[in-house]
Amino acid sequence: MRYEWITFTTDYGLTDPYVGICHGVIGRITPKAQVIDVTHGVPAGDVRHGGFTLAQAVPYLPPAVHLAVVDPGVGTTRLGIVVVAADGLLVGPDNGLLLPVANALGGPQEAYELTAEPYRLTPVSSTFHGRDIFAPAAAHLASGVAPAEFGPAVPVGQLERLSTPAPSVRPGSVTTQVGTVDHFGNVQLTARATTLAEAGFGPGDEIGVWLGQNQFAGVVGQRFADVDGGELVVLTDSAGLIAVAVNGGSAAHRLGLTPGHASEVRITAQDPRR
Amino acid sequence: MRYEWITFTTDYGLTDPYVGICHGVIGRITPKAQVIDVTHGVPAGDVRHGGFTLAQAVPYLPPAVHLAVVDPGVGTTRLGIVVVAADGLLVGPDNGLLLPVANALGGPQEAYELTAEPYRLTPVSSTFHGRDIFAPAAAHLASGVAPAEFGPAVPVGQLERLSTPAPSVRPGSVTTQVGTVDHFGNVQLTARATTLAEAGFGPGDEIGVWLGQNQFAGVVGQRFADVDGGELVVLTDSAGLIAVAVNGGSAAHRLGLTPGHASEVRITAQDPRR
Amino acid sequence: MRYEWITFTTDYGLTDPYVGICHGVIGRITPKAQVIDVTHGVPAGDVRHGGFTLAQAVPYLPPAVHLAVVDPGVGTTRLGIVVVAADGLLVGPDNGLLLPVANALGGPQEAYELTAEPYRLTPVSSTFHGRDIFAPAAAHLASGVAPAEFGPAVPVGQLERLSTPAPSVRPGSVTTQVGTVDHFGNVQLTARATTLAEAGFGPGDEIGVWLGQNQFAGVVGQRFADVDGGELVVLTDSAGLIAVAVNGGSAAHRLGLTPGHASEVRITAQDPRR
Repeated sequence: MRYEWITFTTDYGLTDPYVGICHGVIGRITPKAQVIDVTHGVPAGDVRHGGFTLAQAVPYLPPAVHLAVVDPGVGTTRLGIVVVAADGLLVGPDNGLLLPVANALGGPQEAYELTAEPYRLTPVSSTFHGRDIFAPAAAHLASGVAPAEFGPAVPVGQLERLSTPAPSVRPGSVTTQVGTVDHFGNVQLTARATTLAEAGFGPGDEIGVWLGQNQFAGVVGQRFADVDGGELVVLTDSAGLIAVAVNGGSAAHRLGLTPGHASEVRITAQDPRR
Repeated sequence: MRYEWITFTTDYGLTDPYVGICHGVIGRITPKAQVIDVTHGVPAGDVRHGGFTLAQAVPYLPPAVHLAVVDPGVGTTRLGIVVVAADGLLVGPDNGLLLPVANALGGPQEAYELTAEPYRLTPVSSTFHGRDIFAPAAAHLASGVAPAEFGPAVPVGQLERLSTPAPSVRPGSVTTQVGTVDHFGNVQLTARATTLAEAGFGPGDEIGVWLGQNQFAGVVGQRFADVDGGELVVLTDSAGLIAVAVNGGSAAHRLGLTPGHASEVRITAQDPRR
Repeated sequence: MRYEWITFTTDYGLTDPYVGICHGVIGRITPKAQVIDVTHGVPAGDVRHGGFTLAQAVPYLPPAVHLAVVDPGVGTTRLGIVVVAADGLLVGPDNGLLLPVANALGGPQEAYELTAEPYRLTPVSSTFHGRDIFAPAAAHLASGVAPAEFGPAVPVGQLERLSTPAPSVRPGSVTTQVGTVDHFGNVQLTARATTLAEAGFGPGDEIGVWLGQNQFAGVVGQRFADVDGGELVVLTDSAGLIAVAVNGGSAAHRLGLTPGHASEVRITAQDPRR
């Protein structure tokens, strides 16, 4: 065994047997591996969300082969790859999903295409590479097959990469993007929470959270309960990013956001000089 | 190892990586522990529902450290605790969640605050104590660390406790509360099914199920199929409580109930003398 | 141990503790068994869907006791059974759920009623046989108890069986049924994909997909990306069946289908002579 653990992240949902089938494929190849389901609730086809989310999770996961499949281009010419990072292996489609995770694991070092026949199910379907290519690869990697055995090397610089707009930080203003909206309605932004201090905001400051032309009044805080129930608070979340929350409620509902709808968010003083 | 099993119950849902991250934290500390996910579908912030549900499950679970997190007060002064019960250990916030479960496990014997640095992740976030405090505590407890090692003792009598209105049972009438509404729309009440007999009702009796001013006609039965498809039946459910069900349908839909909306329910003869 | 693996498929959903409780029951009886959750998202009470889905999954699962519970008749006279198939054991209600799965596992060979007291929890509830009868049976079977120990033999020919209308295949026309609608909105039909060629259709052919009087224009393809984004494609899915899909979208939404609503679907040339 090279890795005792496999982690598994997809947009498959749990209403179909897809996740269970992949567990079965893994179990047939490497029955002793332990599998952690990180989440299968990535919004369908949302590659950016998948990479952003898993990158936040990996620091807390055991050393592992991280199997991740959000793959709207299944069956096209996009490659299937294994990426060797400093602190783990990543398996999935080469569509930008894996690189943010590799960066969270110390950076990508090597990558290989997944083409070797002995490590795939045959025939390979055109719609379910999670079952036919990625889960078998993760299982064989966990059981000790070297990454280079899976196919030709792919230069790390040639891997697909999704650009994320950097936050714009000025005195009295942080402009950034919605990263995720969670089950509780907390809205996680893509800017690190340290940008709030860089912009001059500190705990207790009254701020405005802007989506387009709509301003929502809130307060910079350190915990949900720093504001009254139903009030908006902007705080450092558990990943070190800015989150917009409502104490005891849903910020996504308050702001009119729904999962999967990325939007620009601007945080300013409450009566901004525009 | 003190416990081979950890059980895990939250309101985190499964669309985010929170549950997977906690599995990872556990796996890094005690890789040999087996984790049973009881449910992560407790309605958000519904402490009462979480305790009521888990208390029904524990008689069927192996001896375990029971990790439960429904924690709307995360980051406030509420304590994090381990409760020693006769038949297992409980870890979670001190907000009333754990006591009904401890009672189902033979009663609470001791409790300790979770403050010891070596058994937490650092820094501790203000929004995700499941990851930073509770999952690590559960893992260390399973691996054999004694409860008293985690921090100062908390007298059991000082633990937070949620009061539940006792059912009112009179001849021809049981008045009680909605406990849970399940995936099938079965409405579980908080009164034990034996109260039906105490009130004089027996199998085959035609009864009225009242929510406020609305009466729904049903029959006391022993199984769903004791009434025709689409008809309302009141029976003893698998936890020994009264359940209102519709054979082949949803009682919650029939009664206009939705999950999380607690309500008083009254069961009477169908043409009650009010 | 006779089987290292138990697989588990239900319509219980994951918002209640039912699945976790069954895991607990299994863990208490046979702690070393590994359990794969195939899915708990079978539409409530949809026996046909459950059997159809699990039959597609089992070729990819390890040798196992397959525990399947979709049981709208719980508490009635329908039997609880274990079915011995060539390549595994099946446990669940005798309502038609298990036979398609047994057929996918080499065919049913023997069956036994689950009546033996030592292999049940007592008392047996009238509403949760998953907990009281089926999970214990699966666990005892995995740990080596012989199927014949559970109760009287049931002739395989007497097991309940759901009839599925065979597809009607003529030159230029395939008439069949909706089998499942998945999380992505892909509509899986019950006809094998080879029927398309039998009807004279090949890759690139423009076809009409009919629901009742409504025709939707599509193309026969081999992968989602054989049509432009938002266009309808009819292809061979990962189970070898016909699937109707929309590249980057939801065919169920396009066709106005929802999960659980079976419907007849007809595939014809786009300008059919009716």
